[in-house]
Order: sequence, then structure tokens, then C-alpha cells
Amino acid sequence: MKTYLPILEKIKEIIPSRRILTDKSSLYSYSFDASFGEYLPDIVLQPQTAKEIGEVIQLANQFKVPVYPRGSATSLSGGPLPVDGGIVLDMSQYPKKLEIDRENLLAIATPSVITSQVHQEAADVGLFYPPDPSSSNVSTLGGNILENSSGPKGLKYGTTKEYVIGLEIVTPTGEIIKTGGKTVKNVTGFDLTRLIVGSEGLLGVVTEITLRLIPKPQSRKTMLVAFNNLIDSGHAITRILSLGILPAALELMDKYCIAAVEHYRPVGLPLDAEAIVIIELDGHPAAVTEEIEKCAEVCQSFEGVTITVANSEAEREAIWSARKMVSPAITQLGPTKISEDATVPRSQIPNMIKRLHDIREKYRLNLVVFGHAGDGNLHPNIITNKQNIEEMKRVEMAVGEIFDAAIELGGTLSGEHGIGILKAPYMQKELGETLTYMKKIKESWDPNNILNPGKMFPKDGETKVVLIQHD
Amino acid sequence: MKTYLPILEKIKEIIPSRRILTDKSSLYSYSFDASFGEYLPDIVLQPQTAKEIGEVIQLANQFKVPVYPRGSATSLSGGPLPVDGGIVLDMSQYPKKLEIDRENLLAIATPSVITSQVHQEAADVGLFYPPDPSSSNVSTLGGNILENSSGPKGLKYGTTKEYVIGLEIVTPTGEIIKTGGKTVKNVTGFDLTRLIVGSEGLLGVVTEITLRLIPKPQSRKTMLVAFNNLIDSGHAITRILSLGILPAALELMDKYCIAAVEHYRPVGLPLDAEAIVIIELDGHPAAVTEEIEKCAEVCQSFEGVTITVANSEAEREAIWSARKMVSPAITQLGPTKISEDATVPRSQIPNMIKRLHDIREKYRLNLVVFGHAGDGNLHPNIITNKQNIEEMKRVEMAVGEIFDAAIELGGTLSGEHGIGILKAPYMQKELGETLTYMKKIKESWDPNNILNPGKMFPKDGETKVVLIQHD
Repeated sequence: MKTYLPILEKIKEIIPSRRILTDKSSLYSYSFDASFGEYLPDIVLQPQTAKEIGEVIQLANQFKVPVYPRGSATSLSGGPLPVDGGIVLDMSQYPKKLEIDRENLLAIATPSVITSQVHQEAADVGLFYPPDPSSSNVSTLGGNILENSSGPKGLKYGTTKEYVIGLEIVTPTGEIIKTGGKTVKNVTGFDLTRLIVGSEGLLGVVTEITLRLIPKPQSRKTMLVAFNNLIDSGHAITRILSLGILPAALELMDKYCIAAVEHYRPVGLPLDAEAIVIIELDGHPAAVTEEIEKCAEVCQSFEGVTITVANSEAEREAIWSARKMVSPAITQLGPTKISEDATVPRSQIPNMIKRLHDIREKYRLNLVVFGHAGDGNLHPNIITNKQNIEEMKRVEMAVGEIFDAAIELGGTLSGEHGIGILKAPYMQKELGETLTYMKKIKESWDPNNILNPGKMFPKDGETKVVLIQHD
Repeated sequence: MKTYLPILEKIKEIIPSRRILTDKSSLYSYSFDASFGEYLPDIVLQPQTAKEIGEVIQLANQFKVPVYPRGSATSLSGGPLPVDGGIVLDMSQYPKKLEIDRENLLAIATPSVITSQVHQEAADVGLFYPPDPSSSNVSTLGGNILENSSGPKGLKYGTTKEYVIGLEIVTPTGEIIKTGGKTVKNVTGFDLTRLIVGSEGLLGVVTEITLRLIPKPQSRKTMLVAFNNLIDSGHAITRILSLGILPAALELMDKYCIAAVEHYRPVGLPLDAEAIVIIELDGHPAAVTEEIEKCAEVCQSFEGVTITVANSEAEREAIWSARKMVSPAITQLGPTKISEDATVPRSQIPNMIKRLHDIREKYRLNLVVFGHAGDGNLHPNIITNKQNIEEMKRVEMAVGEIFDAAIELGGTLSGEHGIGILKAPYMQKELGETLTYMKKIKESWDPNNILNPGKMFPKDGETKVVLIQHD
């Protein structure tokens, strides 16, 4: 076992001891995230400045110790897990700073700011920050940016990437650099900003963020529609989009989700429906009113039944609560939840759901499907029990088939959860030679493989998902 | 002088001789673009497949010969100029393919497709591709992508980068790889797609493009407003944006542009105005009508005088023709035009214009300013004569001061024209250590510095713009 005493002595010269955690109980609380798997770090640090982070990373390079940055640890792909031990940088305790620059439609923030705080403070001055992952009341902006986690607004408003225009980062060799700036248009050299967004902490630790904001839409309307046939719901979605309507959100839940929600906390969802679709429109009141009527007509023409059109903010929240209850509801169904986010071109949504339901039958698993149907980003979730080795073997095979299906239908392994550890084995299959070019960038910036090692890139010869110890 | 005979012999095994140009007159016609400077290539190739390009680039690596990809050569920063001689890849003759996938709101295109063709074919099925550089009737999609050139719609719709979701490229070592895909959400590994967009041909030759399209706005309205005070026009623009209105375009022309246009082809612009602002709104008809009224009110409150509100497509085109005439009009004023595109945070637009007018006085130059005021992307243009050495020395100093002003006001060297050769000397000043991290990527992908060498990165010790041979 490696001793971390020599680097620890040096770290104490940089960071005061109250912000250095090494006792077992603290280390344990940094050993997991919202995904599958537990890995104990050796040292947890709570840095307060980019300079501290830079100096720690320089030491880490000298002592060849891995460094794992971590926000609120809501990652579903193992993003912050210290798989090789070493140092965890607890960025959730980094100073919180958020300035809204109304005149320039910008926000300047530190990575520890909670995403929903950006929503709130922007809204207070009539502005809007669209990215809204489910965890936005908990997750940090830094984590959202490194994973490019985006939520339901991607269809109309694009992903987190579309709103990050400048960053300050500490590089894998411990230098502090700035990328991008305060202008939406910027072609001064390579776009390092967008390279960092979604880089899963492999290329730098984010220490400051410049976000582009947009004016807040004047009004919004939300409706809930039930379909007795899943394929019909897919056709309705495609038809709405082809009419020139761009909903702010277009969410889908399959019958297993409906059952789980109704079992967990009954809200009157139709248990005989095969799918529920939530459509939210925003913009000018006249446009919204007209478009919601058109959406209702389209859904009706595909045998959809409008359950509710929210006419108030309270009614809107009632609709969204059904969607937001999916995660807690399915968590009740078993101790282990494997969340995926295979993403396909939107016209393939009905095919993908069919494939997912076939996989459910084939492996006799509790697999439910919900997600952002408008942008093709589905969230199949398998509810299982990691103690049940026999079932976990079937889960492993099912997960592999989910990835296969997404790739075969012209899609991708991950729309917003990231690759982390669970999907790394499948990278070669989707990317082929392209993976080499990603590795070249990583190696050129991080020659000692210090920042978040063990993520994104498969180990040599690894081509299959492994969730359990095989004999 | 280097002999290109050995590589030429090998190239003839890959590309039929009718698509290999080596006669002086052909080479001369590939020696310039829309910027300043002339450089003669040694060989011009017109490849027809990614495979041909890959094999040529592999040979180029073997023989250490530079390769310069080129579209329609409308670059204003020297993007395609073969500054070190060698091979020009004439991508304008690459097979043209454009498929609109209406169901998935996508376009699949080859790089030789002219940008306006994408506009047209998307519009034909009710879809919209917002990026619209001034040269869109001539420029290729491949060129637009490698320079991230975007035009007036950046404010509301974002830049070209926001619409490119997948690419096939030939890498600097001659491999064919794919990046991204057909889904808007994609976090499978680093975002190489966005890294390639705006990379100025240093990281790969684009051979296929997947674009995201959006529904075509239902209606649009355009208005032309004159201001007697430049600062007032800046305040009006900021006020409009803070009201929650997001115009599709918000263009500005200073008094020198107005004079140039009226001199070139009189359209009745007010010669006593200090600035003209063009505001275009699009979206739902009710929203557009309401918003254009609000814009008129705001302009009026800042002493702006509405000249025209276009009520028909013909009237709209009349307004835009004034804007589009700026370039041809100022070209009449002198034989050499130096086009810049310093970009500042939008609240700094009035300050930047003031700085530019001061530079005009200080160096006694014919400097005019127009551009995309809504996103802070200005186009100062200096009309001069490159034969006039004395004046060119003043131009050099003025260009340097333009860059200084942009950086001091929190902006950037280039919003959409790219760095190329003219702005490379200033990269270190804006980027500092960040430049090293761009170089690391270039070196890791292109160890022999084969693709578009001599661009973007300053030569050792180079910190000043040099337009002329100094004694």
C-alpha cells in the first residue's frame, strides 16, 4: 500500500489543517456519488483558491498521486469517484460567488454555486439560465459544467455548453489559465472552453465560470397527455416538431414509470396508458396559447388524451411533480438503481423504447424508461439489488445491450450523464479511432495522468461493462 | 528551393492528373483570399474523397510538405493562404451533397456546399439554419465551420458552432475519424466537434458535416433607426436587450459607413446621422408586432428617429441592402481594405466605437465601423493602399491599437474572422499561458506541423502586426 505521508506533509504547507480531512469516517463520506460503486480516497482537501489548487496539483505531479475534483457528487456515472485513491478536492466548499451582469446578459460564478441559485438570481432580474438537470437544487455549477448535464430544456435552448462562454481552470499540471471570455462570439484560437465543458474533470479543475444568460420568456404553458400506444406518442412528438413548434420541454414516461409513481404517491395518472408525454411551451403569450392548442390537436390525432393543461403556476408544478417523482418512486422499488442515458436521433425514440422493453423482457429486469423525448435523450433505469449476484449478471448484459441498441440506432452512449466508469468499456465500440485523438489531448495536457484517472477511457482490452466481481 | 517532384510523383498514384494543378497561372489563382497577402502554393489538388485526402496527408507527413485546405477563399484573416508553400487542397471542388433530414431536424452536407444553399433547402421544408456570414452566397460550409464565421444572427441564435453536431474529418496524420453524431445531446468523451469548429484548419480537413436545424420563425419585421449621437444608439441597444427582447439581428453602421454607402449608391440614408441601427425581430406575429413597437419607443426615448419599418419582404430587403452595400461601398474608397472584427462585451460597444474613432483621428486613416452591435462583434475596416508605405506604417500601428482597445475593454481579437496570419502576433497578449495549451493540442495531433502551418500561433518573439517589409 502506498503511503501518502510525504505529500501530506507538503500539503500542510499549502492548506490549513482544518481543511485537510484524513480520518476514516470523513474519507468514507467522500467514497461514493449517486452512481454505482465505492472507492475510498486517502486525503480530502477543501481548497479556497485557485492558487491552492494549483500548488496541490503541482505536488500531485511530483509525487504521482491522483487528484479527483468533486462537487455535490450527484454524478450518475462515477465522475468524482476516487477509483485509484489519492486526493479528493472537495469543491463544494469552495467560496460561493455569483454576480449577475444584467447589462451584458452574463453571470460570473464560482464552481461551488448551486445551479438553482443561478436560476433564481437570473429570474429576479428578468433573465433566464435554461440548463436544468434534475439535481439542480443540489448540484454545483462546476459539476454541471464538467459533465455538461443539461436536463429537459436541451431541445429548445441547447445544453449547458451553449451557455458557458468563459472559464478559469487549473490545468492538470497546476497552472491557472483562462479560456474564452465575456463575448458570445470569440474565435481567438481553439475553443478550449467547450473542450473543458463535458471533459469530466480530466482536463482541468474549474475555478470560475462566465455564463451567457437570455431574457426570461414572458409566459409558459404546460400540458400532460396520455397515449394508449407508445409508438403513437413517438409519432405525435415528431409531428409537433415538424409543425415548427419548438417546446421548451417534451418529456416522456413509460407505463412502468407511471405505475411506479402511482404506487409511490398517487397523483391520478392513468394506469392503463402506455406512455405519458409532458409538453411545455414558452414565449410570447399569443404564441404559447396558439401552439398549445396545436399540440393538443396533434396528440388527439394520434389517439392521445389530454389529461391537464396547466393554467397557473400551481397547476404547472402539479404536472412536473409527476415527472420529478419518477426518480424517488423507482428508488423505492429496489436498493440499487442503474441510471442510463442512451441518446438517439429523435425519430428513433419509438424504436429505442421498443428495444428497451424487449431488453426488459429478455433479462427479466425491472427496467423503466423516461426522459427528454424531444431531444432523443432517454433515461432507462434498472432497479435491482447489487447483493443479488445472479440478477446483477443479467443487469450487466442488459446494460451492454442498451448501449448496443443506442449505437445501432445512430445514437450515443451518453446524452448528459457522462462516461465516468460505467460506460468507459463501450467507448471504443462507439468511437473507434476517434478515441485515440481524445487520449492525445489528455496526454498532452496531463502527462502524468494526475487528474481524475480511471475515467472515460477504457482499460486495455476492456470491452464489457463489469458491475460485479466475476469468478 | 525545395523540390516537390518526389511527392508529386507519389500524389499522381492517388489523384488523377486532371485534378492536380501545377502550372503557374493556376497556382497564382490559389495564392490569395479576401484578406491581405499573397503566397504561391507549389501544388494544387482537387480531391474527391476523404480517402484521397488521407493518403495525400500521409504523404505530406512523410515528405514534410505543408498542406493548406481551402474553400471559396472568402477568409478575411488569411485562413487558406499557403504561407509556407506546399500543397493547397481545393475543397471547393469536392463533391456537393446536401440532405435535409426533416424528421430529425438535421442536415447532412459535404464541406463544398455553399452556405446559402443550406438556407434555401432548409427553408423549403420550413426549417432554418441561422448562421449567415456576409459571404454566404459564395462561402462554403467547410470554410464557415473551420472559421466559425457566423454573421448577424449570433445574438439570438448563437454562432455556427451551436449548429454543428457531427463531423467527419481527416486528421493531420491522415486518418479519417468521426466526431459527435446525430443527437443534440452527446457527452460521449471530449467534444472534438466543437474543438474542430473554429480551428482554422489546423486540426483536420472537414469532409462531412451534420448540422442541427430549427423550425423557421413564422414571421419577421425589420426596422431602420437613425441616431444623431453614437452613444445614444449604444444605450438604446442595451435598453432593448434588458427589456427581454432578443432581436434576430441588431446591426450598427457609423457615419463613415453611411457616407460611403450614400456615395456609392444613394438609398436615402441620413448623412447627418452619427449612426444607423438595423433591428430585425422574428417569431410569432403577435410577439414581433408588439416587440417592434417597443423597440421604436426605446429608440425614440434615446433621440433615435425611425426611418423605415419594413412591412413586406421587398421593404425588408431594401433595408438590408443598405447594410450589405457597406463592403462594396468602402472597397471603392481605396485599393486595400483591412477588415477587423474585434469583439467586446455589448455594454462596451459605445466605448469601443469611440476608441476606434480616436484611432482614426490619431493615425489620419479612413477607418469605418459597422457590425453586429447586439453581440458586441464590430467590424472596423481601414481603407488604404498597400503601395503607400508611409500610410501602411500608420495602418500597422492603428491595427495594433484596435487589438489593444478590444482586450482592454474585456473583449477579444476576433469574433468570427479568425486569427489566421494578421492577428497571430497578438495571441500571446490576449491569451498568455492559455496559448501553450492550444499548442499542446496542435502538437499532439500534428507532430510534423503539416496542416495549415504558419497560422494562429505567433512566430517566436513576434508581438506586432507586420503588414509591410520594414527596412
